[in-house]
Amino acid sequence: MGDTVKQLAVLGSTGSIGQQTLEVVRALPHRFRIVGLAAGQNLDLLAKQINEFKPAFVYHQGTGQPLHQAGVDYELISLEDMASHPQVDTVVIATSGKAGLIPTLAAIRVGKNVALANKESLVMAGEIITREAKLNAARILPIDSEHSAIWQCLSGETQPAAHLILTASGGPFRGFSPAQLEGVTVEQALKHPSWQMGRKVTIDSATLMNKGLEIIEAHWLFDMPIDNIRVLIHPQSIIHSMVEFIDGSIKAQLSYPDMRLPIQYALSYPERLPNPQFRNLDWNDINNLTFEQPDFDAFPCLKLAIEAGKKGGTYPAVLCAADEVAVELFLSQRIKFTDISRLVEQTLYEHKATAHPTLEEIIAADTWAREKARQLSDGENLCQ
Amino acid sequence: MGDTVKQLAVLGSTGSIGQQTLEVVRALPHRFRIVGLAAGQNLDLLAKQINEFKPAFVYHQGTGQPLHQAGVDYELISLEDMASHPQVDTVVIATSGKAGLIPTLAAIRVGKNVALANKESLVMAGEIITREAKLNAARILPIDSEHSAIWQCLSGETQPAAHLILTASGGPFRGFSPAQLEGVTVEQALKHPSWQMGRKVTIDSATLMNKGLEIIEAHWLFDMPIDNIRVLIHPQSIIHSMVEFIDGSIKAQLSYPDMRLPIQYALSYPERLPNPQFRNLDWNDINNLTFEQPDFDAFPCLKLAIEAGKKGGTYPAVLCAADEVAVELFLSQRIKFTDISRLVEQTLYEHKATAHPTLEEIIAADTWAREKARQLSDGENLCQ
Repeated sequence: MGDTVKQLAVLGSTGSIGQQTLEVVRALPHRFRIVGLAAGQNLDLLAKQINEFKPAFVYHQGTGQPLHQAGVDYELISLEDMASHPQVDTVVIATSGKAGLIPTLAAIRVGKNVALANKESLVMAGEIITREAKLNAARILPIDSEHSAIWQCLSGETQPAAHLILTASGGPFRGFSPAQLEGVTVEQALKHPSWQMGRKVTIDSATLMNKGLEIIEAHWLFDMPIDNIRVLIHPQSIIHSMVEFIDGSIKAQLSYPDMRLPIQYALSYPERLPNPQFRNLDWNDINNLTFEQPDFDAFPCLKLAIEAGKKGGTYPAVLCAADEVAVELFLSQRIKFTDISRLVEQTLYEHKATAHPTLEEIIAADTWAREKARQLSDGENLCQ
Repeated sequence: MGDTVKQLAVLGSTGSIGQQTLEVVRALPHRFRIVGLAAGQNLDLLAKQINEFKPAFVYHQGTGQPLHQAGVDYELISLEDMASHPQVDTVVIATSGKAGLIPTLAAIRVGKNVALANKESLVMAGEIITREAKLNAARILPIDSEHSAIWQCLSGETQPAAHLILTASGGPFRGFSPAQLEGVTVEQALKHPSWQMGRKVTIDSATLMNKGLEIIEAHWLFDMPIDNIRVLIHPQSIIHSMVEFIDGSIKAQLSYPDMRLPIQYALSYPERLPNPQFRNLDWNDINNLTFEQPDFDAFPCLKLAIEAGKKGGTYPAVLCAADEVAVELFLSQRIKFTDISRLVEQTLYEHKATAHPTLEEIIAADTWAREKARQLSDGENLCQ
């Protein structure tokens, strides 16, 4: 295979996935080189990353002036230019929210491999992204642990799968009744039992919206009808997802919960690389893997996402946008935990959807949904 | 892919695996046709099978006269001729004991695919079989559920695996102390908790010798050092085995315990086929998968097999032969359950091994070991 060095641009390098991507690069410097770094906030950390990895290209929000980095020479460019730059082999989209969408499309349109951690891009514009990827022979390499698991299980199979089974830890409120959920706090919601993640995705894990978004993502990534994608609660987070084939055989992928493994697999694919940072499963530790069905009544976000995914059009973009607003409002303690699903549901209810939308229509739906969700949260409907 | 009809010869058609192979063929008559049937005993059942499947070729032990089968025209031929017949696409070796060895080699030497359920062939002569298979571009398609699981998990991977993890139900005596095992009966040993199998393999499952033989088999099938093959007790028999890759990622294959699935996969490979007889895993049923380490003190056969596998040469053939004799003696209530491992151990101890043996040397070692094991069992050494 030869030890070629892959040139990477990491968009969202100061976030949780971005930092873990850099850990993988740090462990395997003979295989990966950082040529671009981009971050929205946390410019102090970005400055440290620039000093360490010495990228040729940088993007950051702010004044448009380079950061003060003695001895490091880099060019400030836009996210789209970085994502489509000829020097870049693989673009890691580790931004959160809709910021990943435009650079993802920019990379795909020039046929680059995109290692995609950003859920919203595929949820909002899965139809456009997968069509453009096919047209331009670009590959979308999933970084989510669930989609990486499915991708690994599909390896070598010559026929479409029958079902995908997305596992979910169940989050901090697994087993809670709808009544119990009314009173939960931000602190409780931010304590995820098995994964260390950013704040938005941690809240989405607590509502199971995250799993709903992953269903829509899996639908586009693996060309699988939403009805054939199931969710299974697996609190230990050791089996990261499964694929059922037409003969009933199931393959599963297992490891300790560590995002660096799916990140590295996306970067090294089709090779696997040993990484001394990773801890192999110790079967003296693992005596018991448990499974249960999701509670759709206690976690209505899961149902809302499945419905939005099935309806398609601009509904998933509205789902995403309303959820982003609702999670922000919950994190700033302006709405209750259970208001998140109510706000998303009402926004979806009031949406007049467009089928097979253009990118502009998707962005317009996103803008509309954010305004609508904020309006609704100001009203009194939610406060019961 | 086209719906080509594969022509099968089933050697050992009246045994457990043979009968289940015919069930698969019965369910998928547009994909598989039986052209050869062979059986050692149970000629009544063989006669019924001949009537139903109308094979061109038959082998059976006995008088050398055709069975009385009105209206069915077939040719009586030898096992080797059947296994290497130009009309046969895939040979299913479902015989038990060493009877599978010679026809396996006959099939491989003419470059045929061999669907191999017979453990002893690879355990006794793995070096010769795998060398001949490579030379003649013949494929060995494993039928054991564990090896089928590993094979499925390796699909599409471009690099060697790091470790193989063979799961084991633990058999009827899981958790028994060495002292408790002294008193167990044949009836108890024949009650396997999760698999319906023949008598010999059921006893081998109770002693864990079966898992030991599977380690040696996996060593040859997947070119994996024995030190990198592990055994994990998993009483529910849902995960059939696992593969750990160099990045620490693990893939597992799951289904209800049903030998027809690995049989069908070996026959349909690289395709998978839907089969209405198979029951998909119901995750409402499966709440809990448990794992524990094997108890090498209570189940010394596992240790003996690993040692014989590591030493190689004629040791594995002696292990197999001594075990076959010991299991027969136990089934006829002439020795105790715990005498099985003692008899195998003493036979191995007295063996003067040959490295890289020829087929003749392997068969001589087998003959020597059977005689030695019988002699030892007549002595008084075992009766303590």
